Amino acid sequence: MRIVEKFGGSSLKTIAYIEAVAERVKAVWEQGHQVAVVVSAMGDTTDDLLERAELLDGRQSPENLDVLVMTGEMQSAALMAMALVRHGVPARALTGAQAGICTTADYGRARIESIDPALLETLLAERVVPVVTGFQGISPEGFYTTLGRGGSDLTAIALASALGADSCEIYSDVPGVFTADPRIVPNAKALQALSYDEMLELASQGAQVLQTQAVLYARQSGVPVDARSTFETKPGTRIAGGNSLPAEPVTAVALDVHVTKIGLMGVPDRPGVAAYACDQLAQAGINIDLVFQALSHENARADIALTVADADREQAVAVCRQTLQDLGGLDLVVDGEIAKVSAVGAGVRNHVGVAATVFRALADAGINIQMISTSEIKISCIVSRADAERALNQVHNAFDL
Amino acid sequence: MRIVEKFGGSSLKTIAYIEAVAERVKAVWEQGHQVAVVVSAMGDTTDDLLERAELLDGRQSPENLDVLVMTGEMQSAALMAMALVRHGVPARALTGAQAGICTTADYGRARIESIDPALLETLLAERVVPVVTGFQGISPEGFYTTLGRGGSDLTAIALASALGADSCEIYSDVPGVFTADPRIVPNAKALQALSYDEMLELASQGAQVLQTQAVLYARQSGVPVDARSTFETKPGTRIAGGNSLPAEPVTAVALDVHVTKIGLMGVPDRPGVAAYACDQLAQAGINIDLVFQALSHENARADIALTVADADREQAVAVCRQTLQDLGGLDLVVDGEIAKVSAVGAGVRNHVGVAATVFRALADAGINIQMISTSEIKISCIVSRADAERALNQVHNAFDL
Repeated sequence: MRIVEKFGGSSLKTIAYIEAVAERVKAVWEQGHQVAVVVSAMGDTTDDLLERAELLDGRQSPENLDVLVMTGEMQSAALMAMALVRHGVPARALTGAQAGICTTADYGRARIESIDPALLETLLAERVVPVVTGFQGISPEGFYTTLGRGGSDLTAIALASALGADSCEIYSDVPGVFTADPRIVPNAKALQALSYDEMLELASQGAQVLQTQAVLYARQSGVPVDARSTFETKPGTRIAGGNSLPAEPVTAVALDVHVTKIGLMGVPDRPGVAAYACDQLAQAGINIDLVFQALSHENARADIALTVADADREQAVAVCRQTLQDLGGLDLVVDGEIAKVSAVGAGVRNHVGVAATVFRALADAGINIQMISTSEIKISCIVSRADAERALNQVHNAFDL
Repeated sequence: MRIVEKFGGSSLKTIAYIEAVAERVKAVWEQGHQVAVVVSAMGDTTDDLLERAELLDGRQSPENLDVLVMTGEMQSAALMAMALVRHGVPARALTGAQAGICTTADYGRARIESIDPALLETLLAERVVPVVTGFQGISPEGFYTTLGRGGSDLTAIALASALGADSCEIYSDVPGVFTADPRIVPNAKALQALSYDEMLELASQGAQVLQTQAVLYARQSGVPVDARSTFETKPGTRIAGGNSLPAEPVTAVALDVHVTKIGLMGVPDRPGVAAYACDQLAQAGINIDLVFQALSHENARADIALTVADADREQAVAVCRQTLQDLGGLDLVVDGEIAKVSAVGAGVRNHVGVAATVFRALADAGINIQMISTSEIKISCIVSRADAERALNQVHNAFDL
């Protein structure tokens, strides 16, 4: 078998952690499998580097910032390769560029354009373990790029795809994907399997387990992904294709507290107004999560409410303020004290009453629903942040997860 | 003009140092000159990295060790480029590989084989300051290499040569080359100019100023080198060609305390014995500094004394012990309590009485000379280490430096 194994920063905190991971890789390699390893930077290295760059306004020169930040992964790759060699496993640290990862020239947030796995193939054929730096590549002009923070999962899945690997194992400090965040829902259980689509909808929970871009890439290329714990031997959660109708309508519930609600109040109630507001945000590169338009019955005006990620908040508010002025609206309301509770499952579309169950569960607990959004496999409700964790438990228990 | 400026670790201790250096580079760039910068790792970074590698027996996999160690220079290059951009100077951090430095595949101690300065030429033509990581390159197989510790001077001089630069400025925390080490000889003076050959002979003093390999490369390519202080605006010392007869017979004096004397006592007094001993050491890759053979009048036996660098001591003693046995000698004597005092100057060969002046200066101070060696531009005396600093001052003052 050919396996790509990716280890995140929490699995590589110290030299002792690196040694433990090396022994784990060795055990697989000794069974005769071909193993390629992808690593993130050790512990807080990236934050430390960014802090230093901050003192020099590093964001003003993103191409130089990428050279700085990529050293974090180079160090962990080099140390991991040394640890493997020490344990008798031939290994070679490689940058993303050497691993053939060609990206766009968008420094700091480059996209993978193509992968030339020739060097990796050569090393694997020689029973050498390539240890590749995660989250980076090389631009068409030959300069180093990074994929943006957390792009290590994407690197691993993209390499697994290019190498035609049998699976891509993503190791972290959690043993897979749960029916809910176990820190909030004490009786949450680990899931054995999950579809790519379900994983995508669970992204807000899954951010700690697997990145959205990485899941999208896996879905597109069909690489089976195993989310596993570095510190346990359990198989973890397999994320793969499969459209079979699951027995349960809802697979897991998720909570996202990093959302902000922006209300454009008293805009003219005419067709195209909501579309215009969404368009302005899209042009600024801001993703809108939920949109809700309510008629205000007097004077033919309406209220539009939408949610964005907290990270986009400042920019989104600026765009919405301009939009409100363009439309002749009355007021802008910004509410950061909200949370999004989602019930996710491939069965949502095929089971009646899933939405009703969610609404009843929240109503029974006296929790007010501010906005609702549904997709084929998800129902999301915006609630007050103060109610967030109680809401998650209510919904989790309503589906007997 | 086109200038290559190299800054060592002591000039890049903190972000504040880096900012100060950036302002210095900017001042030159603003005059319309084309500037390329070469940097070492910041302060103790390399030592810290080696310490971590030590925990994983890093020396067992030198190719991975090179990936680890090179990150030190990448970080300082990236930060320096950011600082320049912040001060309004377009700048780009480059690895040695990107700068076109092709080396042998001797990881950890690679030699520069060729330089393709195409990317540097493009950047310089666009008024961009390339900031190149010192002491590294890329092997014929496309893997990263390092030139061995301290190879940053060599990188700078090699790039200056490949770029046809008007000069290569080597910045450190000392303001150039002195007539003697100013920490030992209080009235030592900074030299304005020096020939490559004199600089080579002063290597033991100059180790802090300029590396021997770098001087050899400069001599071969004819690049004028300026040894300057990062913290002063003085021009420093220019090291260049030039065979004009200097007014003074001696340019500077140097002290090397890192030498060991090994005596092969009572070896047969017949032709070829000293040659055999030297040959055995050469085959083990050990450089001999001075050799001295004295007849011991009784029983046709002689004593051979030679000096080696302290770093080679252990290995040299082992080789000499075997040699003594091969030759049927009587005893091996190892003396680490010695020092070498040298008077260096292009005028040594053309002035009579230089040697006599050295000997008289030492005799006047009651200092015993154990061994003597002379070259065209140097006279060296081995003295007791206890007398070393006094001897250096005596010789320095004897030539009115």
